[in-house]
Amino acid sequence: MFQYFDVASDPSQGPARVARLREWLGKHGIDGFIVPRADEHQGEYVPARAERLQWLTGFTGSAGVAIVFSDSAQIFVDGRYTLQVRQQVDLSVFTVQSLIDTPPAKWLGDNAAKGARIGFDPWLHTISEAKALKTALEKRGAELVALRNNAVDEIWDDQPGPPLETVDIQPFDYAGELAKDKLARMAESLRKEGATHTVLTDPSSLAWAFNIRGRDVPHTPLALGFAIVAAEGPHLLFMDKRKLPRQTEAYLTQLADICPPSALDEQLRTLAKGGETIGLDFGLAAEKLRLIVEENGGKVVSLPDPARLPRATKNAAELAGTRNAHRRDGAAVSRFVHWLEARPPGSVDEIAAVTSLENCRVQTGNELQMPLRDISFDTISGAGPNGAVIHYRVTTATNRTLGPGELYLVDSGGQYQDGTTDITRTLPVGEPSAEMRERYTLVLKGLIQISMLRFPVGTRGADIDAFARAALWKAGLDYAHGTGHGVGSFLSVHEGPQRIAKTGMEKLLPGMILSNEPGYYKEGAYGIRLENLIVVTEPEPIEGGDIPMHRFETLTLVPFDKRMIVTAMLTREEFEWLNAYHARVRHEVAPLLTGEERAWLEAATSPFEDHHHPSR
Amino acid sequence: MFQYFDVASDPSQGPARVARLREWLGKHGIDGFIVPRADEHQGEYVPARAERLQWLTGFTGSAGVAIVFSDSAQIFVDGRYTLQVRQQVDLSVFTVQSLIDTPPAKWLGDNAAKGARIGFDPWLHTISEAKALKTALEKRGAELVALRNNAVDEIWDDQPGPPLETVDIQPFDYAGELAKDKLARMAESLRKEGATHTVLTDPSSLAWAFNIRGRDVPHTPLALGFAIVAAEGPHLLFMDKRKLPRQTEAYLTQLADICPPSALDEQLRTLAKGGETIGLDFGLAAEKLRLIVEENGGKVVSLPDPARLPRATKNAAELAGTRNAHRRDGAAVSRFVHWLEARPPGSVDEIAAVTSLENCRVQTGNELQMPLRDISFDTISGAGPNGAVIHYRVTTATNRTLGPGELYLVDSGGQYQDGTTDITRTLPVGEPSAEMRERYTLVLKGLIQISMLRFPVGTRGADIDAFARAALWKAGLDYAHGTGHGVGSFLSVHEGPQRIAKTGMEKLLPGMILSNEPGYYKEGAYGIRLENLIVVTEPEPIEGGDIPMHRFETLTLVPFDKRMIVTAMLTREEFEWLNAYHARVRHEVAPLLTGEERAWLEAATSPFEDHHHPSR
Repeated sequence: MFQYFDVASDPSQGPARVARLREWLGKHGIDGFIVPRADEHQGEYVPARAERLQWLTGFTGSAGVAIVFSDSAQIFVDGRYTLQVRQQVDLSVFTVQSLIDTPPAKWLGDNAAKGARIGFDPWLHTISEAKALKTALEKRGAELVALRNNAVDEIWDDQPGPPLETVDIQPFDYAGELAKDKLARMAESLRKEGATHTVLTDPSSLAWAFNIRGRDVPHTPLALGFAIVAAEGPHLLFMDKRKLPRQTEAYLTQLADICPPSALDEQLRTLAKGGETIGLDFGLAAEKLRLIVEENGGKVVSLPDPARLPRATKNAAELAGTRNAHRRDGAAVSRFVHWLEARPPGSVDEIAAVTSLENCRVQTGNELQMPLRDISFDTISGAGPNGAVIHYRVTTATNRTLGPGELYLVDSGGQYQDGTTDITRTLPVGEPSAEMRERYTLVLKGLIQISMLRFPVGTRGADIDAFARAALWKAGLDYAHGTGHGVGSFLSVHEGPQRIAKTGMEKLLPGMILSNEPGYYKEGAYGIRLENLIVVTEPEPIEGGDIPMHRFETLTLVPFDKRMIVTAMLTREEFEWLNAYHARVRHEVAPLLTGEERAWLEAATSPFEDHHHPSR
Repeated sequence: MFQYFDVASDPSQGPARVARLREWLGKHGIDGFIVPRADEHQGEYVPARAERLQWLTGFTGSAGVAIVFSDSAQIFVDGRYTLQVRQQVDLSVFTVQSLIDTPPAKWLGDNAAKGARIGFDPWLHTISEAKALKTALEKRGAELVALRNNAVDEIWDDQPGPPLETVDIQPFDYAGELAKDKLARMAESLRKEGATHTVLTDPSSLAWAFNIRGRDVPHTPLALGFAIVAAEGPHLLFMDKRKLPRQTEAYLTQLADICPPSALDEQLRTLAKGGETIGLDFGLAAEKLRLIVEENGGKVVSLPDPARLPRATKNAAELAGTRNAHRRDGAAVSRFVHWLEARPPGSVDEIAAVTSLENCRVQTGNELQMPLRDISFDTISGAGPNGAVIHYRVTTATNRTLGPGELYLVDSGGQYQDGTTDITRTLPVGEPSAEMRERYTLVLKGLIQISMLRFPVGTRGADIDAFARAALWKAGLDYAHGTGHGVGSFLSVHEGPQRIAKTGMEKLLPGMILSNEPGYYKEGAYGIRLENLIVVTEPEPIEGGDIPMHRFETLTLVPFDKRMIVTAMLTREEFEWLNAYHARVRHEVAPLLTGEERAWLEAATSPFEDHHHPSR
């Protein structure tokens, strides 16, 4: 299984480790030390050696920060984890703070003692973060101190080594553009911005730029490392050669000089001493890199990661690949839904469902000769009231039976060599209530409105987010998350910069893949979310119109449960979209199934009857 | 008439005036001088004495800047005026630049000579503008020089004096809150922000805060002046006493010490020398005020105009007033439309239509004993292709007959003591084409979608702008302006901060009045715009829902021309909204009309027949 259901958290070890950390701090004249969950790549998933926050505190959430002082300790978490942190962390040692209302910089700005020396590991904080910390501390007459070594590493005797998983070449058939051409384009953009070099710190950018994939973290096929891309001359790739099979090494050697990871510091130092101008993404790059450059006579300029936008706008090969991946993934999920529907209500629990779904993906991947490489994230499997917990992760402790009359929300995805998938469906277990059906239909209306949009060049995610909500709003309902995130191509399931949300300020460009995932959550009762992935098309002229308009092409191919839909609530346009979508699912996915499973899909995608609306 | 149809522009006087200006500049060691269209209040309308750009160049547009050098002169205009500026200005003297692509600060940043001394009148540029100019010039090694006297004033021998029109009290029945309470609230907000004083520079804020109205500029009932509002102690009002009838002066003396306008400089100087902290709105307040304070030992803090948000959120009395104003204005506009429909096609021109419409408003105002005080802006009266010119203003030179088969776009409004109106209707002259009707209906669908929205607390104009466009976008069409601007209460017809537009970042709050005005423009052929004014309501619970939602209450009460609407293109919801709206117009406005006019309105608002949609 790619997913685990136990949580490796032990609050009892926290106090001893904190005590040792305090000893170290005392010896080194440091009054407080900041321990983020992040690693030097600012990734959503971090390797075991970087789980410092978890090791120190017991907290296993995917975002958080601790600050340990000689006589107190704070742990900062967001709304997803307010309950979890209290279960996982020793509250006699740690005080819980809100990561959103009083993030570390703000908290320090309100609480740091005058003259305090607050230590941090400059590899683990971005340039922007470090600046905010520095500003807040200096206002209090305190000092931000960059440590040479991470204090937790110093006391973590059995800290794992870095991951050394195999790195593969991502073939041209799936990448669609040669790495040397991508790197040349990036070099050109460096020249335009007046930088001589930039450091790629996001392994997703490394993977995209060099057309490689790895296995160093769960669920995202990344090979951790760094690169220095040069405007002129050879590029440098910092990666442990033990990860590179012969053909990968030979391939990469044509693109860059391969250096050990430990050489990054020295190489950057050398460039700085030569007076070079290094572009760094202040929201991504570690503060350490800025310090190296500026302390050695080089110049740092703010430069967004030059891989970010090209990686977001998928080319024809990437799009062809993800369409194929979605057809197969549609067959896999359909198999799962058929299996679930055949089980008597009350005979399946959340873990059994996750296991079955993963097996369906594995089986389908093998049958169709494109294996499931990993799931793209831990499946969210929420029955009944668990469905209303937006970031619910089932564990053996929380596992719940799917009960009759309940809704079951399942949000899952796969990593395939040709694409990354992410889909949510909400299924009735037994008979759903009228209210559940009405609210399911309001959520579906929102998804359909987004799916049907035409929009001009320059439209941003923020401009269209409300289309997913308008029907819910009319009923006095809403959902407390964004409508869509960007998705990678056999890369991260959460990939920026594009978003459909009030904060989504990036223009939607052709080739951008996004999720389309409105929902409705009734605390203590049930959750509904419906998610498809969509791609922005090139702008196309419309007959009789003046201006070419983008569309969204829907990638996900899985039916919506017909029993949940109140068709009288749909407009004519929405009704027709739904029947057409189901017809397309049948057309593209049914050929991949046989027997009962195929029959099930044909029934599940059969058109709704067309009624006269009695009054119109 | 409140509207004029001649343009007082004479390009021939420009060269001589520019020559005299150059002479003055040479004598004073100034290499270039900036002449904006703005006055010291940054108003949309300026008094005659402030029309310096027009006097110098001949250009009469409502926005623009000129910069005169010893050997060249630039004039900066936006897209509305690219044709007009070439007709009005001597192009052998002035080179036309884009105000949007290369605004003055950018242009100077690219073109100013090293060591150049560029003069400006610090009364006519905001603090933010002056900072941008200074930064751009200093990058070039040039200097921004604040002049003690405006160079144009120095050579403008017959420059008019400042306006001295009568100032009235705005009665409590219409204002809804006593001025002393408004000023106390503003003093409190000053205390919260740590300022001891603020300067009100926007006469609209003066009018609102002191409950006064004037006549110093066309179309907006402003009394020009300044005020210093104090966190503690007496306020100061800088206004020429010759404007104040005895009762107004007695009334104002209770609220503030009345000083001559010329005393502002000295009073501010005194406060500064006392070390006070003066809050100024950097986007509104003249740079001169900052210079006075900082050069005399005082401290300036950035403080948005404290009247802006309270003025935008109308109270119960203001809302009751504007509802009454809109009923009467609806009767007036209905009379006009009835009159126009009765004229044979080809017998009316744009000026005759404007004149008739103004007369209808005057006549209705007199009959219903609430006279039209002024029009709220020059009526946009565009027949045929003139309708496609978004900011078209009819003059005797451009006047055009409303021809058979054409569309006629008319955008107009009134100022009444109880409210400000602004409405656009598009009327067919004779038989409209099928395309005209389809596009009219797409525009109407957008207006209806905005009208029907429910939205949660915190929603911004930017979040909903696209609802007005979605139907047009599906047809490959769009309009190149925002969807709505804020409107005042017997104040400015364009009042911030709220907007429905991609740039509309202010939250929509209860009591905010906005326009709802999508359109479609086919260059060289016709223009369509439909505009109602709407108000944000308090959030109201929805039965069965979780979250209270705002609505928009529609204020404007005038029918949409039934002959232009393709009802088959409307959704059921939109169709029902339209019939309900027309029923409401009939119910509220018909009682104000009699005879033929009343019969016309009853026919114009009769419900559309309800059809079965044959296929649904």
